[in-house]
Amino acid sequence: MATKATKKPAAKPATKPASKAAKKMNAFYAQSGGVTSVINASACGVIETARKHKDKIGKVFAGRNGIIGALTEDLIDTSKESASNIAALRQTPSGAFGSCRYKLKSLEANKLEYERLIEVFKAHNIGYFFYNGGGDSADTCYKISQLSKAMNYPLQAIHVPKTIDNDLPITDCCPGFGSVAKYVAVSALEASIDVKSMSLTSTKVFVMEVMGRHAGWIAAAGGLLEDHGVPVVILFPEIVFDQKKFLARVDQLVKKHGYCTVIVSEGCHHADGTFLAEQGSKDAFGHAQLGGAAPVVANMIKEALGYKFHWAVADYLQRAARHIASKTDVHQAYELGQKAVELALAGKNAVMPTIDRISDAPYKYKIGVAELSKVANVEKFMPRNFITKDGFGITAKCKAYLTPLIAGEDYPKYKNGLPVYVTLNNVSVPKKLKKFAIK
Amino acid sequence: MATKATKKPAAKPATKPASKAAKKMNAFYAQSGGVTSVINASACGVIETARKHKDKIGKVFAGRNGIIGALTEDLIDTSKESASNIAALRQTPSGAFGSCRYKLKSLEANKLEYERLIEVFKAHNIGYFFYNGGGDSADTCYKISQLSKAMNYPLQAIHVPKTIDNDLPITDCCPGFGSVAKYVAVSALEASIDVKSMSLTSTKVFVMEVMGRHAGWIAAAGGLLEDHGVPVVILFPEIVFDQKKFLARVDQLVKKHGYCTVIVSEGCHHADGTFLAEQGSKDAFGHAQLGGAAPVVANMIKEALGYKFHWAVADYLQRAARHIASKTDVHQAYELGQKAVELALAGKNAVMPTIDRISDAPYKYKIGVAELSKVANVEKFMPRNFITKDGFGITAKCKAYLTPLIAGEDYPKYKNGLPVYVTLNNVSVPKKLKKFAIK
Repeated sequence: MATKATKKPAAKPATKPASKAAKKMNAFYAQSGGVTSVINASACGVIETARKHKDKIGKVFAGRNGIIGALTEDLIDTSKESASNIAALRQTPSGAFGSCRYKLKSLEANKLEYERLIEVFKAHNIGYFFYNGGGDSADTCYKISQLSKAMNYPLQAIHVPKTIDNDLPITDCCPGFGSVAKYVAVSALEASIDVKSMSLTSTKVFVMEVMGRHAGWIAAAGGLLEDHGVPVVILFPEIVFDQKKFLARVDQLVKKHGYCTVIVSEGCHHADGTFLAEQGSKDAFGHAQLGGAAPVVANMIKEALGYKFHWAVADYLQRAARHIASKTDVHQAYELGQKAVELALAGKNAVMPTIDRISDAPYKYKIGVAELSKVANVEKFMPRNFITKDGFGITAKCKAYLTPLIAGEDYPKYKNGLPVYVTLNNVSVPKKLKKFAIK
Repeated sequence: MATKATKKPAAKPATKPASKAAKKMNAFYAQSGGVTSVINASACGVIETARKHKDKIGKVFAGRNGIIGALTEDLIDTSKESASNIAALRQTPSGAFGSCRYKLKSLEANKLEYERLIEVFKAHNIGYFFYNGGGDSADTCYKISQLSKAMNYPLQAIHVPKTIDNDLPITDCCPGFGSVAKYVAVSALEASIDVKSMSLTSTKVFVMEVMGRHAGWIAAAGGLLEDHGVPVVILFPEIVFDQKKFLARVDQLVKKHGYCTVIVSEGCHHADGTFLAEQGSKDAFGHAQLGGAAPVVANMIKEALGYKFHWAVADYLQRAARHIASKTDVHQAYELGQKAVELALAGKNAVMPTIDRISDAPYKYKIGVAELSKVANVEKFMPRNFITKDGFGITAKCKAYLTPLIAGEDYPKYKNGLPVYVTLNNVSVPKKLKKFAIK
């Protein structure tokens, strides 16, 4: 280390030239689609990192209710929030600025919306667009980067990955997933040993429904219970439901162990593509609104095998469960938010920071970068070699993949028995433009 | 304090007379009915305390699968378990020795069973009967104490309270309840802020079904969210369901806040006594097996008001959720197990240790004693002044009651992302008697 004597005097910071200050642009950040227990940790990463680079990034404006906030010029000035409020985002589930299920149409179908976004960005001197979402959002983010280029507006669009479904390509995993996986594994383990302890005279089959429309990553987490002695049957969306084979497997496990646990993905479906249970309605993205596969499966078992059952549908409890978040997940969510800003500062555009795994045990990874053109609209399913041959379990390879993602606990602070989750002030940025009607 | 000089020399412990040693009797401990996340903490309290009094209590035998283990002479020798295994019970949910839903008939209807119990106790020199359960078990425990007296067999029967339903009389609360209440409050808070953040374009009503057949204590915990700004409607079993009033309340809250959360007790019922959703089957105690009130309520809202909904049924996840147990609850569960043994050592019979509250804030209580004759078959419902006038919420009085019960966190240890829950060796005690067929 340099001693005081040899230390060079620190250069006096030069006053910034007016031209440079004028060039300093603001950032826009929005949360998109289903929120998670750690999406706010990414927001925290984005905002805290931007605040460290005030020479290059002005204010961070957040879209109130996601991209709708950008379209309607309903922006939140995050610079009005205290450092402690922003720091508290790291331990707060939900979307602190509001999120939305609103899919922009194709450029051809609704160019007006894209042009409006650019108009809003221009009005508020926004040069950085950080979009925190899943596959649909990556597509939107990519389109915006293309349009701004075409319109010659200087915008850098960076996607921050988020999805409990873990179905984004290129990145090894997605923030939000590890915590849901941990929730599912912990909750199913607890319920399973509960059932086991009473199976002689009471419930013999416990069915737990988890999220995952097309990809079975969340359901796969239930497979981690096997190493804790729990007999588990998993119903993946990737494997066509075979009722006869399924019932035979359940019967076999109950006869051997006295009980068994079934983890059924909401996306589990029959050969003709119909889900085990559909509620009939569809969301804004046109996806069928699911729920209720668990009672269907439970009653099927009761009728065919006569076993007493119980079933649970975790629904939002699983994706909001910040109280049992994975430390790895919280850390990566923050890191990817931070990296998104660093990529912007490095002049990148139309990219997404990724988790690139180096090794399973010890778990090592580095942060990489993916081109959005390669991310948008690609869904990553469970590889077949992650699922056992019979289709009802996970392989050692899958266990090695999942284990580091659920590792570590990151407890929020509590007061009077409840977690302290922050509610931001969400102060509006004064509007400058005319109203814009969204459809 | 006495100085060394004035201190009397400690009396040399006298060698116990053979007659006294011969009188030293073993203890029997069993878990009954639905298990909880802290019933093993009570077991830990019983066993660790008994181990401290080896001069008076011999071994602690546990019933394998509850009282069925006593009837079939299927006893577990807990003295074969290491101190660390027994200590680990404190952080392990489920019933470590197995529990059962098996209700002994009345003395008149099946005296044979009661006599068999005494026969087994006699064969294994059991002089202390610790029964860890709810209202039905308190009744069994009381009957056994009466019969042993009638048969002139020296047995002290002590009931250790356990029920997530919190419906035992005299005691201020029951071990198991505080942790479920904490789980419900934490989970519903997390899901509610998730829904709130997306309510503009997505789900507007979140319905969460919780346990509680006749008493609404568990559902009441949802009322604690009000102080966190969450609009909540609670459907108690104590209040007859009024569909019109309910829908009007939901509509009012959604119009005002943009969303609302409904906590529905599984025991919520219509004026004619039929539950909102019955699965038709009944358990061994003759209680209807419930589940599925949440989808009924959610669809009712969708049809009448058109709001997009999501619903969750927590089922066993709530009562097994040791990962988010209340510190107060874990502590009291242990304490009451400990106190049960101390009561036995003090010569008590046909009693149950209780929590006697002294003050809400600061929370203070002492351990009391209740006569089993006054506990058996009495259910404690929510007092009307704990429920708001409109029947959909909880009063300040109720909040003051609930708050200390969910206070504090008591996290289990984790390994590789999952809690370390102990599985005991459960070594059998050699049988001495003929087989006994249970019905």
